[in-house]
Amino acid sequence: MHAYSDPEILARLNGNSAAQGFNRWMGLQGLAAGNGQVEILLPLRDDMRQHHGYVHGGCIGALADMACAWAGSTNGGQDVVTSNFTIHFLRPAMGKQLRAKARTIRSGKTVATVEAEIFIENDGEEPKLCATALASIAVLPEARPRI
Amino acid sequence: MHAYSDPEILARLNGNSAAQGFNRWMGLQGLAAGNGQVEILLPLRDDMRQHHGYVHGGCIGALADMACAWAGSTNGGQDVVTSNFTIHFLRPAMGKQLRAKARTIRSGKTVATVEAEIFIENDGEEPKLCATALASIAVLPEARPRI
Amino acid sequence: MHAYSDPEILARLNGNSAAQGFNRWMGLQGLAAGNGQVEILLPLRDDMRQHHGYVHGGCIGALADMACAWAGSTNGGQDVVTSNFTIHFLRPAMGKQLRAKARTIRSGKTVATVEAEIFIENDGEEPKLCATALASIAVLPEARPRI
Amino acid sequence: MHAYSDPEILARLNGNSAAQGFNRWMGLQGLAAGNGQVEILLPLRDDMRQHHGYVHGGCIGALADMACAWAGSTNGGQDVVTSNFTIHFLRPAMGKQLRAKARTIRSGKTVATVEAEIFIENDGEEPKLCATALASIAVLPEARPRI
Repeated sequence: MHAYSDPEILARLNGNSAAQGFNRWMGLQGLAAGNGQVEILLPLRDDMRQHHGYVHGGCIGALADMACAWAGSTNGGQDVVTSNFTIHFLRPAMGKQLRAKARTIRSGKTVATVEAEIFIENDGEEPKLCATALASIAVLPEARPRI
Repeated sequence: MHAYSDPEILARLNGNSAAQGFNRWMGLQGLAAGNGQVEILLPLRDDMRQHHGYVHGGCIGALADMACAWAGSTNGGQDVVTSNFTIHFLRPAMGKQLRAKARTIRSGKTVATVEAEIFIENDGEEPKLCATALASIAVLPEARPRI
Repeated sequence: MHAYSDPEILARLNGNSAAQGFNRWMGLQGLAAGNGQVEILLPLRDDMRQHHGYVHGGCIGALADMACAWAGSTNGGQDVVTSNFTIHFLRPAMGKQLRAKARTIRSGKTVATVEAEIFIENDGEEPKLCATALASIAVLPEARPRI
Repeated sequence: MHAYSDPEILARLNGNSAAQGFNRWMGLQGLAAGNGQVEILLPLRDDMRQHHGYVHGGCIGALADMACAWAGSTNGGQDVVTSNFTIHFLRPAMGKQLRAKARTIRSGKTVATVEAEIFIENDGEEPKLCATALASIAVLPEARPRI
């Protein structure tokens, strides 16, 4: 769908995700990945909500964190970890699913700076931006053993 | 245990938490709360881990976010939401449980600034600081209906 | 130049700026302002540089902070202050002038979330993005006296 | 004064600072430096103030940024640059001087995480915390030429 998406990279990211306990619980679905960008869909369930009935900020934050890390890993297939992460919540999110769009702003040898936007979507409504994030993603040396 | 803790505030926070889908999934246990501070324990499960076997950053972030919000709500029982949130991950976290300690740095009428430290703990080892966070917590007007 | 710019708002911001000691030292020039957006030019001098000859991060940060605050104040003429501020430096900046472009992402009653991009410019070269920032701007109640 | 301070490191930092245009303009005075920590004093002048008469946030931010970078450079004498930086402003600052205290939370091979507190001081008053910051400081490889 997206011109930037590379089927191999997308398959690798979705495969890695399926191998991780927390990601499996989240149930996130990578839709596009490549050239420093990703798009991820997160269908919402009741165990992702907080006391106002809105999506819990912790889930929005986790999705934004993952989207930034995925985006930062599309340039070369390296292993990455989030070094730090800032998120601003813009409005309460009530709806059917979240959509994350992340974009690498600057890709260096050891760190990538990535921004993400999180949209809340509902049937028959325009998507609404509910959070924006900025992250530093550390690109791990290839030689480093995957413990 | 902690001199700052107030049994009523702690019971209210643990009660609110039990009423929230995401918090129930997390299984977090408030240990102390009062005077702008909280301590929360999070026993770790496999569905909280990532591909290196470490605790997923998304879980660490969600715990830090909650700890900051809880701490920001101890001064007066108001309803609060996280406005924004920065977290720095300091080391990979592998172990049995996470412990969050949050402390209100500055409490204003409409916003509280809170910092949190997240420790990873394992049997027979010293707790290790694995993340530090800084958050703005919005204090909602009392008149606002709890939707 | 910019469709969003409103001459009255721009004149007010440049006037306020001229009345402030630090802004006068900086020498920043508002080029456009309105509808949650601003563009500001900062001609560079030697007393804005650091030990590598690059623009000092402190100046880039101050410019980004101001651009966010100005952008946050264009919706209604309120007095504003920066509540918090995150900046990621993307590359060393050497050149003739900095250009800040700030845009309000979400404007609420008491807080605006604003993002800013800082470009370094030199004769005969394409502008280069050297920093990106995300800020919470507190909108002060009108009743509050302007001390 | 401070047990952590090392006269050689402090002299190096103050010397580097005196060689930088922006730092000279600021007039900051390193008081202590060593073991990941620094303390810096900034006497305030009218060209550091904003329209309410308070210290300009841009100056507070620049001081916090420098304090974090200095602290991050005390472990080994490496050259460092600020990678990213979050600051929360806690109260308006009016007074005679600012004091920055920065402390390295975690020192890695390529990045240090540092926190800083900024206090406003006035004759006959207790120092007041006016801002708190969290920064990632990139430690540059020694082999990298100082351009």
